[in-house]
Amino acid sequence: MRSAEGVAFTRPEAVAPGAIEIAGAVKNVALVGFGTVGSSVAKLICAHGGARLRLTHVVNRNIARKRVEWAPRDLVWSEDFEAALGPDVDIVVELIGGLHPAKELVLRAIEAGKPVVTANKQLIATYGPELFRRAREAGVSIAYGASVCGGMPVLPALGAGLGGDRIVEVKGILNGTCNYILSRVESEGVSFSEALAGAQELGYAEADPTDDVEGYDARAKLAILIRTALRREANLPDIQARGIGDVKPVDFIYARRIGRTIRQISRAKWDGEAIAAWVQPALVPLTSASGTLQGSRNVVVTTGEFGGDNVFSGFGAGGDPTAVAVVSDLVAIANGGSRLTINEQVQQAKIADDYRSAFYVRFVIDDQPGILAALAAVFAKHGINIDSVLQERGFERKQLPFVITLERCRNSQLQKALEEIANVQHLVEKPFALPIME
Amino acid sequence: MRSAEGVAFTRPEAVAPGAIEIAGAVKNVALVGFGTVGSSVAKLICAHGGARLRLTHVVNRNIARKRVEWAPRDLVWSEDFEAALGPDVDIVVELIGGLHPAKELVLRAIEAGKPVVTANKQLIATYGPELFRRAREAGVSIAYGASVCGGMPVLPALGAGLGGDRIVEVKGILNGTCNYILSRVESEGVSFSEALAGAQELGYAEADPTDDVEGYDARAKLAILIRTALRREANLPDIQARGIGDVKPVDFIYARRIGRTIRQISRAKWDGEAIAAWVQPALVPLTSASGTLQGSRNVVVTTGEFGGDNVFSGFGAGGDPTAVAVVSDLVAIANGGSRLTINEQVQQAKIADDYRSAFYVRFVIDDQPGILAALAAVFAKHGINIDSVLQERGFERKQLPFVITLERCRNSQLQKALEEIANVQHLVEKPFALPIME
Repeated sequence: MRSAEGVAFTRPEAVAPGAIEIAGAVKNVALVGFGTVGSSVAKLICAHGGARLRLTHVVNRNIARKRVEWAPRDLVWSEDFEAALGPDVDIVVELIGGLHPAKELVLRAIEAGKPVVTANKQLIATYGPELFRRAREAGVSIAYGASVCGGMPVLPALGAGLGGDRIVEVKGILNGTCNYILSRVESEGVSFSEALAGAQELGYAEADPTDDVEGYDARAKLAILIRTALRREANLPDIQARGIGDVKPVDFIYARRIGRTIRQISRAKWDGEAIAAWVQPALVPLTSASGTLQGSRNVVVTTGEFGGDNVFSGFGAGGDPTAVAVVSDLVAIANGGSRLTINEQVQQAKIADDYRSAFYVRFVIDDQPGILAALAAVFAKHGINIDSVLQERGFERKQLPFVITLERCRNSQLQKALEEIANVQHLVEKPFALPIME
Repeated sequence: MRSAEGVAFTRPEAVAPGAIEIAGAVKNVALVGFGTVGSSVAKLICAHGGARLRLTHVVNRNIARKRVEWAPRDLVWSEDFEAALGPDVDIVVELIGGLHPAKELVLRAIEAGKPVVTANKQLIATYGPELFRRAREAGVSIAYGASVCGGMPVLPALGAGLGGDRIVEVKGILNGTCNYILSRVESEGVSFSEALAGAQELGYAEADPTDDVEGYDARAKLAILIRTALRREANLPDIQARGIGDVKPVDFIYARRIGRTIRQISRAKWDGEAIAAWVQPALVPLTSASGTLQGSRNVVVTTGEFGGDNVFSGFGAGGDPTAVAVVSDLVAIANGGSRLTINEQVQQAKIADDYRSAFYVRFVIDDQPGILAALAAVFAKHGINIDSVLQERGFERKQLPFVITLERCRNSQLQKALEEIANVQHLVEKPFALPIME
């Protein structure tokens, strides 16, 4: 395949087995946003996009400093969105991130009758229903496979692949930055802030890490998984997101005592009436798919009423893996696949404001006789059974951390008990509670 | 949704989140083959097939004993294929298994302009290219998501989901029966034949276990994965399949010495010129996705040039999981998805007749001075480096099993060396060699 000048768009003569083959006409692709992912997308299309995808436009601010040598000579570089909306563009790829002007760009593209591919999880999680409605009206599709777990084909697997099952739960580790930070707190015994600083130095965490460590990034992905797996539209703020900043090295020591480690877990479970959905640090079995996950990989586990558990793991972020998802969506659209099904209207989710779980509660006390009795009395009063009391040696008596694990109860029960426990004497810190997962 | 008599096809009033929603007209479905999977498919369609899938025909031998109470009253039960090919049927599901008359049924359905859904791996692996050509000509699709790994959405994930990557390797555990048998040999130290008999008693292995234990079942699945992931058509007999019957308890003891276990592995790897593809027992790291796999689950690991590794695991067999894949294909077809892309023509694969690997070789000797020297001399002569020599205590000197591990070499090199080693004195058994995977 050759550009107008007969240059670039090289396609290896000896086509490797994985090379993309697309039926139908050549599709002209405009990329809006040319950062890490955009540059990888361009590279993939140019290197082995097959005979039917052609990168024709790149739009970005300060476009002059974005130009790359390996791009096709006749590629249009522009700072103006309008360049991506012209009649010579068949598919628009939105990679600018954030809510605005990403939303406006997508709406403009839809109005112009162009299918859109996006990796923008916040956009889809926030404005999905509106964008999908507009796309259905215009008869085009919005593909967003890259918005959840980068290079892992989770959305196609759950959408088309498990369309015949009734999925009742989806959970996993959706944020590699948190996994990296918690792994370091665990393995090196450093504090959260030290681990975060280290992650920032290495480029694994952003200068403003709020989205990652407070769970907002994972929450947007969970909302999209709820749409795809549980086939319900979730209102983003209804999903509780809780940061990992209060997890301490001592929590890993106690977690290990009960065969568990701590990870940022995202989870949505249909209980027959509503969906219990949250993002928070939680104790997971050391031998589980989440407990064994290495480095910055992601894992998603679904439970289907008929097909049982399915586990997916892979690279959830990074330029090349995310670009794979973007180009896979481009290929699917160029193939004429009826991607509109992914924009179907689904019912609104009822997100439960409570959930049941076993719990881990870490107390730090100025050790005095009678404290355990006082705590146990409060739990008993609230109808919560204690499962075990764990105390490691080697801590100061004035700053003694110890742990009570609780049998399954409602989170609201636990919170009420903890409110009352705030009045128990000799507590040095506010108790710290985490759910314990099976 | 109600049948003509106003009965059955119950659809819960309070629709659970996972319930299928299909756009478009109601599709009438004919099931040919009503065994375990067929019965599960019928149950799924009737229980929650959504408003747009209707089971109208069931064809089977001795149909009288197949009738079930919970089926819709107006369902047509027949012993005649023709019933599934009439104008009132929109989609034909082939679940009779075997090559014939399954092939003839599928061809008849295609000729009648009806899309086909099949779970028949041998049919697709053997006659795929011919069936796909006929389907393309007729403008209908053959969907076969259930033919590989039952309830795991591997084919949609690799097809649409990773269409933008160049996959260079696909490997995994594709047969749950072999995994169960090898796990028992490992954990209980029983012989292969004892473990097989146990599996047969429990219904995990068939009366004639050839297809499973000789690797033919896994080989058909591997051929289909080569098509979907590496986008090449493999000639089934070109893929080497080797049984698990010669693996002994002692092999697990030696494997563990080098941090590995033994599993039936299926693997296809593009080496830049050809695809090295085989099914055989192999040593895998204890901590790998294959090494940690429990029970009868399956696992598939793909390596993409851009997206890196993706791991999928789930229930690869069983009525309900396989039915999920069948119904997912039905839903996709009813959705009007352009499933024809899965029947695209792909180039013929060149399957390599050799491959490179590190190897494990178990010798059983009547222990005499000089044997190791003799073996080492033969390996040296053939240019093969010895990595380690392992000998466990507690065996008889007249029947002493010991192991030599070899650095990476070509399998053909190893086989030549083993031919020569057959002449070395005091070997009690033929040497037993297995590849060692990273």
